[in-house]
Amino acid sequence: MLNKEDYLSYLRGKKSNVYVLGKKAEDVTEDPVLKPAISIINKCLDLASDPKYSNIMLETSHLTGKKVNRFSHLTMSKEDLVKRLEHVAFLQTKTGSCTMRCAGTNALNALYSITYDMDKKLGTDYHDKFVKYVKHVQDDDLIVGCGMMDVKGVRPLRPHQQPDLDFHLRIVEERSDGVIVRGCKAHQTVSAISHEYLIVPCKVLGENEKEYAIAFAIDVNTEGIIHIQQHNFQDSRHVVAEQGSIDFGNINYGSSFACTSLMIFDDVFVPNEKIFMHGEYQYTYPLIRRFSAHARLAEGGCRPRMIDLLIGAGQALSEYSGLDKESHIKDKLTQLSFLSQSIRGPALAAAYQGSTTPSGIYIPDFLLCSTSKLQAIHANYEANKLINDVAGGFINSMPSEKDYKNPALHDFMEKYLARVPGVPAENIIRIFRFIESISMSPVVGALHYGGGTLEAQNVTIRGETNFQEYKKWALSLAGITPEIP
Amino acid sequence: MLNKEDYLSYLRGKKSNVYVLGKKAEDVTEDPVLKPAISIINKCLDLASDPKYSNIMLETSHLTGKKVNRFSHLTMSKEDLVKRLEHVAFLQTKTGSCTMRCAGTNALNALYSITYDMDKKLGTDYHDKFVKYVKHVQDDDLIVGCGMMDVKGVRPLRPHQQPDLDFHLRIVEERSDGVIVRGCKAHQTVSAISHEYLIVPCKVLGENEKEYAIAFAIDVNTEGIIHIQQHNFQDSRHVVAEQGSIDFGNINYGSSFACTSLMIFDDVFVPNEKIFMHGEYQYTYPLIRRFSAHARLAEGGCRPRMIDLLIGAGQALSEYSGLDKESHIKDKLTQLSFLSQSIRGPALAAAYQGSTTPSGIYIPDFLLCSTSKLQAIHANYEANKLINDVAGGFINSMPSEKDYKNPALHDFMEKYLARVPGVPAENIIRIFRFIESISMSPVVGALHYGGGTLEAQNVTIRGETNFQEYKKWALSLAGITPEIP
Amino acid sequence: MLNKEDYLSYLRGKKSNVYVLGKKAEDVTEDPVLKPAISIINKCLDLASDPKYSNIMLETSHLTGKKVNRFSHLTMSKEDLVKRLEHVAFLQTKTGSCTMRCAGTNALNALYSITYDMDKKLGTDYHDKFVKYVKHVQDDDLIVGCGMMDVKGVRPLRPHQQPDLDFHLRIVEERSDGVIVRGCKAHQTVSAISHEYLIVPCKVLGENEKEYAIAFAIDVNTEGIIHIQQHNFQDSRHVVAEQGSIDFGNINYGSSFACTSLMIFDDVFVPNEKIFMHGEYQYTYPLIRRFSAHARLAEGGCRPRMIDLLIGAGQALSEYSGLDKESHIKDKLTQLSFLSQSIRGPALAAAYQGSTTPSGIYIPDFLLCSTSKLQAIHANYEANKLINDVAGGFINSMPSEKDYKNPALHDFMEKYLARVPGVPAENIIRIFRFIESISMSPVVGALHYGGGTLEAQNVTIRGETNFQEYKKWALSLAGITPEIP
Amino acid sequence: MLNKEDYLSYLRGKKSNVYVLGKKAEDVTEDPVLKPAISIINKCLDLASDPKYSNIMLETSHLTGKKVNRFSHLTMSKEDLVKRLEHVAFLQTKTGSCTMRCAGTNALNALYSITYDMDKKLGTDYHDKFVKYVKHVQDDDLIVGCGMMDVKGVRPLRPHQQPDLDFHLRIVEERSDGVIVRGCKAHQTVSAISHEYLIVPCKVLGENEKEYAIAFAIDVNTEGIIHIQQHNFQDSRHVVAEQGSIDFGNINYGSSFACTSLMIFDDVFVPNEKIFMHGEYQYTYPLIRRFSAHARLAEGGCRPRMIDLLIGAGQALSEYSGLDKESHIKDKLTQLSFLSQSIRGPALAAAYQGSTTPSGIYIPDFLLCSTSKLQAIHANYEANKLINDVAGGFINSMPSEKDYKNPALHDFMEKYLARVPGVPAENIIRIFRFIESISMSPVVGALHYGGGTLEAQNVTIRGETNFQEYKKWALSLAGITPEIP
Repeated sequence: MLNKEDYLSYLRGKKSNVYVLGKKAEDVTEDPVLKPAISIINKCLDLASDPKYSNIMLETSHLTGKKVNRFSHLTMSKEDLVKRLEHVAFLQTKTGSCTMRCAGTNALNALYSITYDMDKKLGTDYHDKFVKYVKHVQDDDLIVGCGMMDVKGVRPLRPHQQPDLDFHLRIVEERSDGVIVRGCKAHQTVSAISHEYLIVPCKVLGENEKEYAIAFAIDVNTEGIIHIQQHNFQDSRHVVAEQGSIDFGNINYGSSFACTSLMIFDDVFVPNEKIFMHGEYQYTYPLIRRFSAHARLAEGGCRPRMIDLLIGAGQALSEYSGLDKESHIKDKLTQLSFLSQSIRGPALAAAYQGSTTPSGIYIPDFLLCSTSKLQAIHANYEANKLINDVAGGFINSMPSEKDYKNPALHDFMEKYLARVPGVPAENIIRIFRFIESISMSPVVGALHYGGGTLEAQNVTIRGETNFQEYKKWALSLAGITPEIP
Repeated sequence: MLNKEDYLSYLRGKKSNVYVLGKKAEDVTEDPVLKPAISIINKCLDLASDPKYSNIMLETSHLTGKKVNRFSHLTMSKEDLVKRLEHVAFLQTKTGSCTMRCAGTNALNALYSITYDMDKKLGTDYHDKFVKYVKHVQDDDLIVGCGMMDVKGVRPLRPHQQPDLDFHLRIVEERSDGVIVRGCKAHQTVSAISHEYLIVPCKVLGENEKEYAIAFAIDVNTEGIIHIQQHNFQDSRHVVAEQGSIDFGNINYGSSFACTSLMIFDDVFVPNEKIFMHGEYQYTYPLIRRFSAHARLAEGGCRPRMIDLLIGAGQALSEYSGLDKESHIKDKLTQLSFLSQSIRGPALAAAYQGSTTPSGIYIPDFLLCSTSKLQAIHANYEANKLINDVAGGFINSMPSEKDYKNPALHDFMEKYLARVPGVPAENIIRIFRFIESISMSPVVGALHYGGGTLEAQNVTIRGETNFQEYKKWALSLAGITPEIP
Repeated sequence: MLNKEDYLSYLRGKKSNVYVLGKKAEDVTEDPVLKPAISIINKCLDLASDPKYSNIMLETSHLTGKKVNRFSHLTMSKEDLVKRLEHVAFLQTKTGSCTMRCAGTNALNALYSITYDMDKKLGTDYHDKFVKYVKHVQDDDLIVGCGMMDVKGVRPLRPHQQPDLDFHLRIVEERSDGVIVRGCKAHQTVSAISHEYLIVPCKVLGENEKEYAIAFAIDVNTEGIIHIQQHNFQDSRHVVAEQGSIDFGNINYGSSFACTSLMIFDDVFVPNEKIFMHGEYQYTYPLIRRFSAHARLAEGGCRPRMIDLLIGAGQALSEYSGLDKESHIKDKLTQLSFLSQSIRGPALAAAYQGSTTPSGIYIPDFLLCSTSKLQAIHANYEANKLINDVAGGFINSMPSEKDYKNPALHDFMEKYLARVPGVPAENIIRIFRFIESISMSPVVGALHYGGGTLEAQNVTIRGETNFQEYKKWALSLAGITPEIP
Repeated sequence: MLNKEDYLSYLRGKKSNVYVLGKKAEDVTEDPVLKPAISIINKCLDLASDPKYSNIMLETSHLTGKKVNRFSHLTMSKEDLVKRLEHVAFLQTKTGSCTMRCAGTNALNALYSITYDMDKKLGTDYHDKFVKYVKHVQDDDLIVGCGMMDVKGVRPLRPHQQPDLDFHLRIVEERSDGVIVRGCKAHQTVSAISHEYLIVPCKVLGENEKEYAIAFAIDVNTEGIIHIQQHNFQDSRHVVAEQGSIDFGNINYGSSFACTSLMIFDDVFVPNEKIFMHGEYQYTYPLIRRFSAHARLAEGGCRPRMIDLLIGAGQALSEYSGLDKESHIKDKLTQLSFLSQSIRGPALAAAYQGSTTPSGIYIPDFLLCSTSKLQAIHANYEANKLINDVAGGFINSMPSEKDYKNPALHDFMEKYLARVPGVPAENIIRIFRFIESISMSPVVGALHYGGGTLEAQNVTIRGETNFQEYKKWALSLAGITPEIP
């Protein structure tokens, strides 16, 4: 299976098409903005090769019978889906970060099941091609991402009504051996440092939008693809501080969104063998639905653990400050735990109450996983309020590690940042930096990823609620029969 | 199995020890305050005898191999526990009410498992006695309640420190053939209209509180027991209006708390064969924990459906008012559905992620079911806000059915309460009464039942959260090792 | 000025057109449903005649120079408006109830200013007529209500599009000496027990809806008017229990909504001298706006004090239970105080930052008083959650006073409901009943009164927010000038 | 009065004792971390010298009769205090930032009134000295900050019990001409770039803590004082991007916390004439109370406008995206406006309902301004949730200005980030950066400044609530008299 060295040498060997802060990153492995993200991928590879964690990190492929990385595994059972949730939660405790590979897993599952349905109904050969592709991914242990979100232009307009028809990625030329696509996928979490990418539509499409109904796999280094890195506040920290430094907070990984790209497709050729949907617009709805269900479920794994890490840091800081017996501190840490479990609960329920698609892929209950995700959004802001109150002002105004290490300042900081005797000031600085790295970071607002906005959850919950059935119950109890005489 | 007629004749034959509004209820089946509650019990008996519902209402006893009422069934597996949640949810849709029997079920499960543990450890014979008792309950299909909550006197004092030692029910005399107990159990949901009652301690007890560590079963008509009915706002409606009338809202059942009693034990004899704990104070903690886990889980079944009934009524009223396409109405109904699922999700998860006690009883995950219950408390008030805004002022100011039926007023009310053409004013009155029966009723504040107050959930969540483990994760990511040098 | 005896003899002398529970109330002063409401009016009359309270209860009329009841006073200055808020707050502490007369005050102020504007612009003579009317009200110290809310039929339709044109009150016949009106005003808080009523439109009207643009005063006993009383849960308590009994909770007044009526106008004649708007549809917007601003402000007076009463009761109960030092109890009482002040603050600000209309009437800032009202709605449900958690289960399941007074039960209840030594059980029962009378009563959902629903506040806040101005500030700071090149 | 040039030359002439990122900042005016903060000070100086704004920016000193900067003005009336609130709100719209000078204003007012009280009671001469000092500040138009917050060490311990007695700033040596102080003030918003600083205690002190009861003024460049700059996420942006660049978001000021320092007093001499409290521990309570009241009030000025800026940016972005008619967008912007007003309302009320201290200083109502501040904390997180949902993913993943200006990328970004035709992509980038600069910045968690944490407000609200009075009202209504028989 893929190991750290192979991965780094792959990255170094890539023809660069990644831009960071206005410049092409000649060697992504040396770029300060990309390094933390690469470290996260590497950590996950390390864990996968550690026999101690093989139960959680690996799974037996139903396609090949071989052990494969769980990120590339297809969820063929309730147990698989519950395990996936635990996998995501586990990795959060080991990295304190988004591990960036969930979208790929979601897409592998969604496309496997949709290509099956298409072939059965339409007599196409997508599923066979896709099975072959998945085997390749599993066997070569590739890092696979997924690009769904288009830039979308004028929001209320359909793709074919947009002032620029490329606001949603589309086929601009049909060839005998493939297609040429053009467009731009936004917020691409892993594209700059992965092997392969699955591209799928982000909207339910109509008959007159067939050129948008395209799904395919592609090498992220393909001619015509450009990755422009995000530039958020945490990235700037990565430029200013060294990885491994106290100022990273989460000292090795720093940030969960170190690697989001604007991914441009400037007339890119896709060969037929990597195309898995080609005009079948009527399958965009189930594709997006199944992808989203997986995506929202996964958030129910990592988000609670992110809050648990805040609890852990809050507990440590309270002990260091002599506040761990204070009732309002204990209350707030308890409320944080409630918030964590209130996300985890519906996600677990969604995994247990999922359903099996014709292909055998087992997908989460959509209402419950959207409930989990919506609760994650609400809980995120509430959690930050609580931890900020537990921690106090140094989450904003801690001096830098360079100050701490400056001999002219070191003793002062050691003296004045100390609290409970015996705890070095450095511990206190570290804890504040760690809390900053989560609660003050771009993660604060990054709840749009992994299953969409608050409003997207509302739309799903509305769609999945059986209002008419509930009405029947109420009318019957109220003695209204028939409904209208 | 027990049928409606048997049950009513049992109630009529009981020696009355039930007081309602200051008077002894000579025939409880004719008492306007108790009638709605009896109707709920009867509805559940009807459903249990309907083959269409046998799958949800009945289960095979692992003790006798016979089909028994699910309320008397012991949960020996994950499936049993999930089924129990569905059972509770189903009954809510059929009655719009608390079915009053959960506490009994909780106690049967908790005592079965605790007596097993005690016997194994202490060599007592409680479990055998209890198995015999359960078989009797199952075979004769008895209505069994449970009295846990003592009146508790001065809250921060231990039972043995109270100004009145009877503030917690206790043994006041030991006899060779049994014990005499004295005390008072509050908020007893079904005691006035059940067959049997299980009495258990409500506090974790210490060595010097052995006389409080008593668990037993008792016939609710036993000499020395008095049931004084609650008198809440909905009860008054039951006095003023006829069951089956529009003003009941939920026309047959009216209220979920029609039958809560203050249950007084004025030196009551309990024979040895019905005693299942007698001084083993060290088992009060697991007993209360297992009982509470079951109780909180059950709320995760009924509460979401109570909100779903509000959604159904809100949907109906919106259609009757021409408002069902209005965005703020749709949003509010959707938010209600989110609230419902946010309670149901952690409860389902608690059922799936439970654990098996040595006796074989499968109990819910305590952290997750307490999360569900706490979310239920929060959601309850939020749900009322939303439905009150959807419904508008007539939830408070609807005239009575007697007005509507008065010929001098009928045509005016028909004319002016009408909305969308074709919908009779009566439908609109009924829907308002139905929403009133839930959102304006004592149920609004009844979240203390079925697993305790908001604060009780906080205490559990604090106790069940592994703060030190979370701390370890955070410290490791922040580079703090060892914790203190 | 009006005293209690005059008022009672006026009520007894009225030709009855009030229906309660399906029957005509021959003497409203003896009707158990109406009695608590009448007691509230009487309490306010008592306070007004008590020299100790003349500063808050009375004010000098700018029309007559005489002292008048503050309910009939026109707010001609900032001080008047702040005083009005204090007046409403003060009465809440004395009655624990809605005093039912605010809508009248709101309408007096709104009509005074609008008739002035109409006369200036249109040359009509409404204002002179209205000044004469106000002097009559002030001099004879009349109880005046206001009927704004029509039944409204199909919600999204305009009055003239409704399936029944009478869904909004309208002129059905023009006569030389007046008009005949038909319609129905809903949720009329004081109509059954007042002297006079001001009727105004409840919707902003268009040119083709002139017959709806009618404002007038009328004697509530006029031929053709019928008042059908609401029937809510608290009313039933009033039927079952005696006023002055413990079960009333708030022993004299019991409920703030004892007296809401459906008020039917079955072709009622209104003489010209009592008509203050007659077709001037373009003045419906400012009329409703000014009325609503006053109405929402008034809620900022009574609602906080309602929460303060819950705090006071919670404090008492905590002391009686030995819980007043418990941190979570203190926290919850503190949170209640925050909620109270968070309503009061914006209301006070609205009073201080009001503006003067051409007539001299000083009206509150509409954005701030709508903010207060919306916060009142949110806070109401949150407050109930908190107090229910502070109080515990007996807010639902307290036996009746009749049980407590039954010799067979009295000693048991005295013994078992006691808590801290020296506090009689009766105190504890009283406190629970008092908390029930607010937190479990129809008041819980009555936030639609006094300025409209949650959604109504949203609509105002949207309308009163200067989005374009805010945008300009943001664009300027972001360096976007001009906005679009 | 002070102008920009004078101020810059003062800063350049300062002997540097400011450390940034581990190095001494030789010229603070050229330091990228400090520059945005200096620009804010300058902007305020520009506004003060602009006749158009003299009404809001200047006020007549009651000490000198001359026009002075409002930051140095003492609030001697209700009007002064309301004006101060408007001043703070106005500056937020002009800078989008904390203007850093409020703490100084708060301290000037608090010390003026406390020194007056001390002199009256104790016969000291602090007030005369302080009046002289204030005149100097006003006449020379000095930038004055205030250091209150000590580092505090072990939280539950008193200053004199701490493992290090210097955890709270204290006198370490008494001299005939002054004192030597040692300690460390944390989170000092303007110390690195101001003229003068007022140092006051941060805890209510006891008789055995007289050496901590010290208040004085000091030149920020005094020997022995060191300022170590914070290093938060936004500072890193300031290192990476140029001021004035798009990436600053708020292009000139970037951040409201650019200049917070850890301010170390390494045995600093304070001459007698600048000492305004010296051992009078019993005045620490009113000093802190009056300071805090002012501080919390000021937040009621800037925080609402910060939300209004988010509304403005959200409105712009919605228009650029074609979403400004979407109901859920309009709802969220309206909710933001409600949040803004719900902070502003209680602050305004606190200003209007303040009280006058013996010295003539008019101070805000403490309960209402603490309510405003607590609501500000709650609203902050809620506001970020709403704006993040309105804005979408690019608040996290927008590429940098350098990417946008790279010719290889520019056209792609122009094409794909565009939305509504005619709006350049640059506008959209700018709006996202602006929203990022507020909602994703350290401001998110900086609610501890300006009046303390959430818990600090709770403590005040508890202390200022008259629980016993509220109890009396409730008992009287419930018929409980006397309270205990």
